[in-house]
Amino acid sequence: MKAKASIQGLEPYQPGKSLEEVKRELGLTQVIKLASNENPYGCSSRVFEALETMKNRLHFYPDGSARELKEKLADHLEVDERRLILGNGSDEVIQILCRTFLEPGSESVMADLTFSRYEAGVRIEGATPVKVPLKEGTHDLEAMLAAITDQTRIVWICNPNNPTGTIVSHEALSDFLDRIPEHVLVVLDEAYHEYVTDPSYPDSISLLDYNPQIVILRTFSKIYGLASFRIGYGITHPDLIREMERVREPFNVNGLAQQAAIAALEDQSFITYCRMQNRRGIDQITRKLEELGLEYFPAHGNFVFFDAKIPGEEVFQFLLRKGLIVRTGFGPTNVRITVGKEEENDQLLQALEELIISKRGLASNV
Amino acid sequence: MKAKASIQGLEPYQPGKSLEEVKRELGLTQVIKLASNENPYGCSSRVFEALETMKNRLHFYPDGSARELKEKLADHLEVDERRLILGNGSDEVIQILCRTFLEPGSESVMADLTFSRYEAGVRIEGATPVKVPLKEGTHDLEAMLAAITDQTRIVWICNPNNPTGTIVSHEALSDFLDRIPEHVLVVLDEAYHEYVTDPSYPDSISLLDYNPQIVILRTFSKIYGLASFRIGYGITHPDLIREMERVREPFNVNGLAQQAAIAALEDQSFITYCRMQNRRGIDQITRKLEELGLEYFPAHGNFVFFDAKIPGEEVFQFLLRKGLIVRTGFGPTNVRITVGKEEENDQLLQALEELIISKRGLASNV
Repeated sequence: MKAKASIQGLEPYQPGKSLEEVKRELGLTQVIKLASNENPYGCSSRVFEALETMKNRLHFYPDGSARELKEKLADHLEVDERRLILGNGSDEVIQILCRTFLEPGSESVMADLTFSRYEAGVRIEGATPVKVPLKEGTHDLEAMLAAITDQTRIVWICNPNNPTGTIVSHEALSDFLDRIPEHVLVVLDEAYHEYVTDPSYPDSISLLDYNPQIVILRTFSKIYGLASFRIGYGITHPDLIREMERVREPFNVNGLAQQAAIAALEDQSFITYCRMQNRRGIDQITRKLEELGLEYFPAHGNFVFFDAKIPGEEVFQFLLRKGLIVRTGFGPTNVRITVGKEEENDQLLQALEELIISKRGLASNV
Repeated sequence: MKAKASIQGLEPYQPGKSLEEVKRELGLTQVIKLASNENPYGCSSRVFEALETMKNRLHFYPDGSARELKEKLADHLEVDERRLILGNGSDEVIQILCRTFLEPGSESVMADLTFSRYEAGVRIEGATPVKVPLKEGTHDLEAMLAAITDQTRIVWICNPNNPTGTIVSHEALSDFLDRIPEHVLVVLDEAYHEYVTDPSYPDSISLLDYNPQIVILRTFSKIYGLASFRIGYGITHPDLIREMERVREPFNVNGLAQQAAIAALEDQSFITYCRMQNRRGIDQITRKLEELGLEYFPAHGNFVFFDAKIPGEEVFQFLLRKGLIVRTGFGPTNVRITVGKEEENDQLLQALEELIISKRGLASNV
């Protein structure tokens, strides 16, 4: 009963503490989680109504081909339904891509630092991740192009990039795609797509017609506020969908998620509201970071990545004791915070200021 | 962008028609689906209450390690929590097993006819399925033992077997396990476990301590009536769990499914009721099959597999026109019907009788 060799180095998922555990251990009544880039405004109330309608069909298997949702989604995105594949979160679409296109000997090019599931997916298939350092927090497309070999099967571009929040522009991306060899698939992970307001951000769907080798990933876990349901999707050429469908589990997307996503798509004013509030939150956070003299990358998603100039673990523990959960572990002094509601951001920024100032006081006393 | 060679022969999932489509096309107001072994009594009403409590946390990612559910489940099964792994349906646990233990060159032994996801999972990994014919509708354990080679990594035993409904006894299974070489994992898929009333059925959990190489699969999709949610689980040695956790997606089980499963576990009287009703339904169905002179296999799950002595497709189409959906395609004249409520079974059996008698009439007129 030996597991296959390729997974031996992989770390199993290490769960963080639950909100309840944090509350109990630290004796806190309120904990604010700004760690997982969830939508602080929840989801559209139409989702609650959709859940009601599911009550008498919870015992039925979901529609394995998600016809109703695909129709709505195709309409919303203005793409052909045959370009869509749904996943148990876009995490699963990443997994399906790896299982479809990678095998031992394949290579896959990704940024260093980027979303960790690309590397995990590549390694589980026994393929080789080729990591290209970011340049000022942004994908270094020239270096990524140079890293492509005959063995390369997939290149991952996370746009906005998680965790840095930076984007690759439409122009840079088009130019990059023009130079990609035919045997390489380019995955554009746009989990934070709906948050972006920068006009230079790619209109990736318009690129589909001339680039059969791109796969766009989107999700309902971020601005749509449906993270609990697990639903995301891929958009690509129907020929690639057909290959990926061979690997997809027949009932991979649960029935509640399908109905929730349909309902959520119908409430675009909620999405617009969340996008606007998020912009205000980013301004609120970055103003304070500037005031504190801390460097951050341009934030295009619903999170801000900055250099605290203090060990990340220290920042994490200090904030945790105040009931604030953020994300560290990306680099020695880097911190990623999710944009919360105004009052949540305020609490976080006040605590951060307190820490920074107390550390500077100590430093100047030396 | 070539997909890997091993998946080339695999058929993508071909969706059946939805209930709504069937109704529309055939002008029917009511359609009874006895095709997917779903629980006709739905699920416990406690599940509805659990869904209510989720409303204000739909935007949060699920607990990736499902602590609360694992605790409940460990308690219910009387096993250590570290023996549990959860999946997006037990389908996903099958996938995780394949991804963890199989690679090109590996072999995997399974019955011919059995649940189709074993073969799919094996082939996606580029491993070789080795199919051993059933003997009177039951796993032929001797022949399966004989099929094991140095390359064998997983043997699948579906118990009760889907689609035939037969079981392997505790004694036969124990004897089989005693003779299994150490490098082979034995998966006992017990999706229909809670329906079985036969005293010879294995107490598989009692076998865990002395057989570190077995993995038991169970699900909430069948008697618990939660198929829409997608949640199943595996029970095995903690060392194997650790390997499988390297491959599991961090947030593979959605948050609503976790809460629904916790609530469903608490209502064991609902499970007992469904088991009893199912037994009555099996008696009702098999009595009529005997009356009609049709052969069936001993039914231990919530479905009956019989030989209609008429082409399956003809049975399927005849019943469909009457608003009854059953499952065929397993063999030329075989049909699998899910045990429904008494009145549903009645409708089905009347329609079947009508068809059988009309065909016999035709035959005797020749």
